[in-house]
Amino acid sequence: MTERLVVIGGDAAGMSAASQARRRRPASDLEIVAYERSSWVSYSACGEPYHVAGQVDPLEALVARTPEQFAQRDIEVHSRHEVTAIDTSSRTVSVRRLDDGAVFDDRYDQLLIATGATAVRPPIAGRHLAGVHELRTLDDAALLRAVADRGPAPVVIVGGGYIGLEAAEAFGERGWDVTVVSAHPGVLARLLDPDLGLAVVEAMRARGIRVITGARVSSIVGSEHVENVEVDGKPIPATAVVLGLGSRPEVELAQAAGIPLGPTGAIAVDDTQRTPIDRIWAAGDCAEARHRLTGRPANVHLGTIANKTGRVAGINLGGESITFPGVLGTAITRVCDLEVAAVGLRTSDAAAAGFDAVDGTATGTTTAGYMPEARPMTIRAVAERGTGRLLGAQIVGGPGAGKRVDVFATAIWNGMTAEDLEWTDLSYAPPFSGTWDLVAIAAREAARAAR
Amino acid sequence: MTERLVVIGGDAAGMSAASQARRRRPASDLEIVAYERSSWVSYSACGEPYHVAGQVDPLEALVARTPEQFAQRDIEVHSRHEVTAIDTSSRTVSVRRLDDGAVFDDRYDQLLIATGATAVRPPIAGRHLAGVHELRTLDDAALLRAVADRGPAPVVIVGGGYIGLEAAEAFGERGWDVTVVSAHPGVLARLLDPDLGLAVVEAMRARGIRVITGARVSSIVGSEHVENVEVDGKPIPATAVVLGLGSRPEVELAQAAGIPLGPTGAIAVDDTQRTPIDRIWAAGDCAEARHRLTGRPANVHLGTIANKTGRVAGINLGGESITFPGVLGTAITRVCDLEVAAVGLRTSDAAAAGFDAVDGTATGTTTAGYMPEARPMTIRAVAERGTGRLLGAQIVGGPGAGKRVDVFATAIWNGMTAEDLEWTDLSYAPPFSGTWDLVAIAAREAARAAR
Repeated sequence: MTERLVVIGGDAAGMSAASQARRRRPASDLEIVAYERSSWVSYSACGEPYHVAGQVDPLEALVARTPEQFAQRDIEVHSRHEVTAIDTSSRTVSVRRLDDGAVFDDRYDQLLIATGATAVRPPIAGRHLAGVHELRTLDDAALLRAVADRGPAPVVIVGGGYIGLEAAEAFGERGWDVTVVSAHPGVLARLLDPDLGLAVVEAMRARGIRVITGARVSSIVGSEHVENVEVDGKPIPATAVVLGLGSRPEVELAQAAGIPLGPTGAIAVDDTQRTPIDRIWAAGDCAEARHRLTGRPANVHLGTIANKTGRVAGINLGGESITFPGVLGTAITRVCDLEVAAVGLRTSDAAAAGFDAVDGTATGTTTAGYMPEARPMTIRAVAERGTGRLLGAQIVGGPGAGKRVDVFATAIWNGMTAEDLEWTDLSYAPPFSGTWDLVAIAAREAARAAR
Repeated sequence: MTERLVVIGGDAAGMSAASQARRRRPASDLEIVAYERSSWVSYSACGEPYHVAGQVDPLEALVARTPEQFAQRDIEVHSRHEVTAIDTSSRTVSVRRLDDGAVFDDRYDQLLIATGATAVRPPIAGRHLAGVHELRTLDDAALLRAVADRGPAPVVIVGGGYIGLEAAEAFGERGWDVTVVSAHPGVLARLLDPDLGLAVVEAMRARGIRVITGARVSSIVGSEHVENVEVDGKPIPATAVVLGLGSRPEVELAQAAGIPLGPTGAIAVDDTQRTPIDRIWAAGDCAEARHRLTGRPANVHLGTIANKTGRVAGINLGGESITFPGVLGTAITRVCDLEVAAVGLRTSDAAAAGFDAVDGTATGTTTAGYMPEARPMTIRAVAERGTGRLLGAQIVGGPGAGKRVDVFATAIWNGMTAEDLEWTDLSYAPPFSGTWDLVAIAAREAARAAR
């Protein structure tokens, strides 16, 4: 008998799952239908700032696969269709077609919730004024691109996380007068220790981006259209505002249906991506994932994890058996020619998770110091006192710095000690590193601190 | 009682050892004297091509520490002093001071042989003509820079290994008419499979460098100064020739003293860098090192390994106890904007070493495909059939490609399977990779092949 898989959410997790399930089960065995609320499916949200910056065109370049392409693989995708309710007893979902408001029910044998994350929207006065934007969906990106095209003019970015900083860089590229307001002493406060966050602030300032740290937006002021942003009571003129205040898992639908959430507030799943409710799966930003270092549930909103957990769900739905091995929270971004990356736990995070953690920092250059292209680079490695086991790393530096985080990710994935990483046979040639790659030197410093 | 450590060879291995021993034992406990045949100590041979290219100046920028700086740390360094014999029974070395030919003996309690490697010099007719050069020592680099400064003119590079290619690129940068002659179907034949070696050849040709593959230099022709290089009987005009035909361990001194060589022809050492002869140590290019995959002795001529084995010798000489964990043969270079790197075994090497090996190849881009800076990248991963254990990787691609080899190095170091690497939490943002880094995709392909 043919089963029917309904997927809620047509982006990375949902469509990876659909594709993997389809590879393993033909349409005669498994019908697959996906409902997506927005106008777009299967797109790269991470690429949006580069469209705003005018570096990636057209907007459609960010779309990996269209509904038509999915249809060719017998995957039915309906964009602008919002699932409004899940009934777990009758195994149906209620769907609203946004173009005409029509409402219908659909039956499922298997249901995958891949509703993603949504912006955190604190109740800042004036946030509904015209000219106040977010940068999450492709529609947001199209709108912000049109805004950027009308400039240059003053723009205020509220939030110093990576979406905020990438938006800041995008507007900077377009010649706008950019001010970033961060509530923290630095920026990227969830990735970096404060001193490294300040190094990023300095790089931004050197590129002419104003950064106001340790400050809060009290209100956004204007009549109809934004005119000023009040930061700690002081007005900053703004023709446009971008709110980048983080994201939270979109779980209202699951919650209303009685599907349990975990301690992070995201949907609880096991390592096969099954929720505790029979025949209901979850993957991507809306679902929890196990952190390999703490062993505890985490909720990481990254395209990599959405792809992977979707793939796991899809392989399992396809009849094979696979488990998701967990996350380390590896992240990377580029801000004004500075590459920033982090993995695992900072010393403070590690302490909060019950580790006795220490760290070591190495400062050097991205290439051999004598090469003309050498740029400063700092790497901090975190290790457990006594055992020397690696727990995390942070990297800030010029071209070539950021991807070194993958060496730490691989090391931590394997439970390596800092000393063992110090001696690992890493590559060297003058255009790429010093004889001892700074990864090894940072590991050595952490190993020393851990003794 | 004060001991006396004599170090033969004043470059990476020897001076790393000296420094590490000194950190642990003061001069009152350990005298340290190093003899170096050339005019320079503690320099970066790998940086020489960039001096020839005019990118690194002055030549002294390649010197990490001068004899005067070592003297401040109570390490006595004599350049232009050649050790001509070792007498293991009387524990003395014979030394010739090259500037005046004076000869003297020196006594040792501990002896470190760090004589490095020397160029392979096949008996090509005409190789002693003026205008025929090597690129190994800083003196070579100074001379070749002067040659390059007199150009542009035609230069022939004999050999398609990395020294040859880096020299080719250097002369190309200076506007010379460059021809590379490789005996192999491609270049970098010790690092890359033939098809990937050909990709490098294509990149070089696209930059205007002529590459003649599968060809041999029969003779170098000229009266006093080189005029032509005969390649398979056909003359190619040349104002200068650079021979880059690989290197062999410099072991004559050790051999004459009865210090055993291993199966590779390099000096046999245990993992503390001790030779079988009491009080005699060896490190760097002249010594063997254990290959972690084959478990057999290897002889790798790389600055990283010289530094590390020297450091191990020095820590042990300093009274602590440490073992060298071995090599994977990780290597990297840049040729005409193409980054090339390899680690571990190729499928053919693995078969020769007794593994049942398969490989998987992934082709993609260095960044998200839609980014303007995206460049082609190919990664091949090698794995053991059945177990899926990673055995090697080769990478050829644009900026950002090469250092990905360190992820494979770390994975292989830990005995990871290809499938486990596929699922490792690697970083992603559009300026750095696709959502699945090509490392993971290559690992997936290798895992598939290994099943």
